[in-house]
Amino acid sequence: MPAFLSFRDGMARLASAVHIITTDGPAGRYGFTATAVCSVSDAPPTLLVCVNTAASSLNALLANGSLCVNTLASDQQLVARAFGNGQPMADRFATGEWTMEAGDLPRLADALVRFECSIRSVAEQGTHQVLFCAVNTIAPGAPGDGCLVYFDRRYHGLPPSG
Amino acid sequence: MPAFLSFRDGMARLASAVHIITTDGPAGRYGFTATAVCSVSDAPPTLLVCVNTAASSLNALLANGSLCVNTLASDQQLVARAFGNGQPMADRFATGEWTMEAGDLPRLADALVRFECSIRSVAEQGTHQVLFCAVNTIAPGAPGDGCLVYFDRRYHGLPPSG
Repeated sequence: MPAFLSFRDGMARLASAVHIITTDGPAGRYGFTATAVCSVSDAPPTLLVCVNTAASSLNALLANGSLCVNTLASDQQLVARAFGNGQPMADRFATGEWTMEAGDLPRLADALVRFECSIRSVAEQGTHQVLFCAVNTIAPGAPGDGCLVYFDRRYHGLPPSG
Repeated sequence: MPAFLSFRDGMARLASAVHIITTDGPAGRYGFTATAVCSVSDAPPTLLVCVNTAASSLNALLANGSLCVNTLASDQQLVARAFGNGQPMADRFATGEWTMEAGDLPRLADALVRFECSIRSVAEQGTHQVLFCAVNTIAPGAPGDGCLVYFDRRYHGLPPSG
C-alpha cells in the first residue's frame, strides 16, 4: 500500500449508490450510469449530479432542462453495466423495464427510488459540471429492496434493513 | 408504501459512505459525521461537502479554510455515532484514535482513506452550503478494510472486495 493514493484510487474507496441518470426532450433521449449524486438541501428539495464536461449527454441534459435519477436496487447490476461507458446509447434502454413516453423522462419501473428533477443551476468545477436540481417528484420502488453499491471498483448488493 | 415519498424518506434510500469531517485552526477544532460528500473532478482533484447552514461547525470550516474528510471503515460505527448530532463537541474526539497537532487537521489514524483539503469556493443551495474543496493529500488506511455505509437510516458494514 503506497503512503499516498491517486485521486482515482482514493475515490474508489468511497462507497456510493448507483444511479441511471436519464433525460428526454427536444435535445434527445440519453441515459448513463452515475455515482456522483448527492443530497443537497431539504428546502427546497435539491440534489446534485456531477457530469463530465466531455460526456455526450451533458448538452442534452442542459437543453432538455430536466432529468430523472433512477437509483438501482441490489439486483440491478446488469442495468448499471448496460448504461456504462462505451455502451451504444441506442442499445442501453433495452436492458431493464423502462417507461418511456414521448417527451417524458424515462423511468426505470423497478428502481429502488426515482427522483424527477428540473435543472436549476450549473457550477463548473475542473473536468466536471455540477448540476443543481430541484426535486419535483420522488417515487418509491418495491418495498424492502436492497441497494446496489459501488465500492473498490466492484458492485455489491446491500441487503435491506431487516 | 405511499405513491410518493418525502425528500428525507427518498434520500434515506440512497446508500452512502460515512465520513468524519474535521477542521482545526484559528477558528477552533470541530468534527462531525457527514454523508453528503461527493467526488467532483479529477483535474484539479476536487470533492464537495454539503454542510447545513445552521451547523455550528460551518463558520469554523470557512474561517480555517481547510478540512479533512476521514472516510470510515466498516468497524467504525462507534466513531460515526460519537460525531453525530447532539454529541458535545468537546467529547467527540475521545472516540477513535486521532492524530491532533496544534493548528493541524485532526486525522483518524485507522480511517479507510483520508482526504486533506483546502476549501476553494462555496455555493449556497437552500438549507445548505456546498463547499468545493481542492484535495491536497490522499492517505490510505489499512489495506483490505471494508467500508461503513449508511442506508435506510442504519449503518451497514460492507466487506472488502475479495
